[in-house]
Amino acid sequence: MTRVKVVENILKANDQIAFKNRLLLDKHKTVAVNLMASPGAGKTSLVMRTVEALGSEMRIGAVDGDTASQVDADKIATTGVPVIQINTGGGCRLDANMMQSALEQLPLNEIDLLLIENVGNLVCPANMALGEHARVVVASLPEGDDKPIKYPNIFTKVDAVVINKIDLLPHLDFDLQAFQKLVKGLNPNARIFQVSCKTGQGIDEWAAWLAGLRE
Amino acid sequence: MTRVKVVENILKANDQIAFKNRLLLDKHKTVAVNLMASPGAGKTSLVMRTVEALGSEMRIGAVDGDTASQVDADKIATTGVPVIQINTGGGCRLDANMMQSALEQLPLNEIDLLLIENVGNLVCPANMALGEHARVVVASLPEGDDKPIKYPNIFTKVDAVVINKIDLLPHLDFDLQAFQKLVKGLNPNARIFQVSCKTGQGIDEWAAWLAGLRE
Repeated sequence: MTRVKVVENILKANDQIAFKNRLLLDKHKTVAVNLMASPGAGKTSLVMRTVEALGSEMRIGAVDGDTASQVDADKIATTGVPVIQINTGGGCRLDANMMQSALEQLPLNEIDLLLIENVGNLVCPANMALGEHARVVVASLPEGDDKPIKYPNIFTKVDAVVINKIDLLPHLDFDLQAFQKLVKGLNPNARIFQVSCKTGQGIDEWAAWLAGLRE
Repeated sequence: MTRVKVVENILKANDQIAFKNRLLLDKHKTVAVNLMASPGAGKTSLVMRTVEALGSEMRIGAVDGDTASQVDADKIATTGVPVIQINTGGGCRLDANMMQSALEQLPLNEIDLLLIENVGNLVCPANMALGEHARVVVASLPEGDDKPIKYPNIFTKVDAVVINKIDLLPHLDFDLQAFQKLVKGLNPNARIFQVSCKTGQGIDEWAAWLAGLRE
């Protein structure tokens, strides 16, 4: 029983900090989007494609979460946008406290859209609010079309699902219709985007949706 | 400080149960292998290919961990081997207690090799002993060649790394040499296998290594 109580207290404390993060973001009119995915689904590539697509019409910033290293933040920094790397020291998700530290270091009054790349994980990030305005799961074709069955929690808790690596469709056994039906069954309101961060396919539609979040 | 203490106590309690699981496995001369990977890396396919390769020379059993559903266990059951599905109810890894329940339900005196498919996750399973004899991480090409940099903990704690979906090499930007160098840097003793569960490439070598664990 002690264990459960501790977990509940941690989540409650997290929500309070997330609420403060949200107020801070709203004060600066910064829209924050929490990108969640398996390792290697293409979160960093999606951030980079998004900067390419939207960088001329709005000011973008990024927060990058990983258990170790700063390779992703280094990649994103090459686009010229401000980026903060959070290393969780082995932790399987970002939390509101980590996000608070990142927000303190970012020039929020110069950022319209903040893209948060969570730790690669389809389980842990699902229940941990950061103060974000929208939540997105990036799924990639090579992971297989059964992921919504096996990780239903995260798919029910997002505003959009980005299906990445769509260029690999000819080389894989992935049933696109079945996948989308599973997502809609869990989360009828989720927007679904089919993209390839490699070729750029579908990025415009995704970018338009992101831009619409600011309205 | 309370939080850390609770986590330490949970790990200690887990190790004690894992030790009992190990004794039970040893009593039945069952070798258990813990397969860990990102979602969709191909753990279930690897189990099925392994049954195909080794099923005639040894008796195989399987334990399948997922946050929800039993689609993987159902697939494995089609091979005819005994399989137990563990649903973690959202939990991001198997633990020794879950494994103990599974072992109680398996005919261990009829199983030479027990393949344990952990929850799809590169973070949580790394520190949680189940009582297994060997630990393996399955990495797949589409996840990218930088995974050992970003999830070093799990790569340091395994006996072998299986690189799956090698058939996709022509369609991806994956530096096989760089990946293997990163793995060797973290874990010089880890065996590395290149396989394709789709084509069967490399499965024989992997199966021979598994068979060798019983000697």
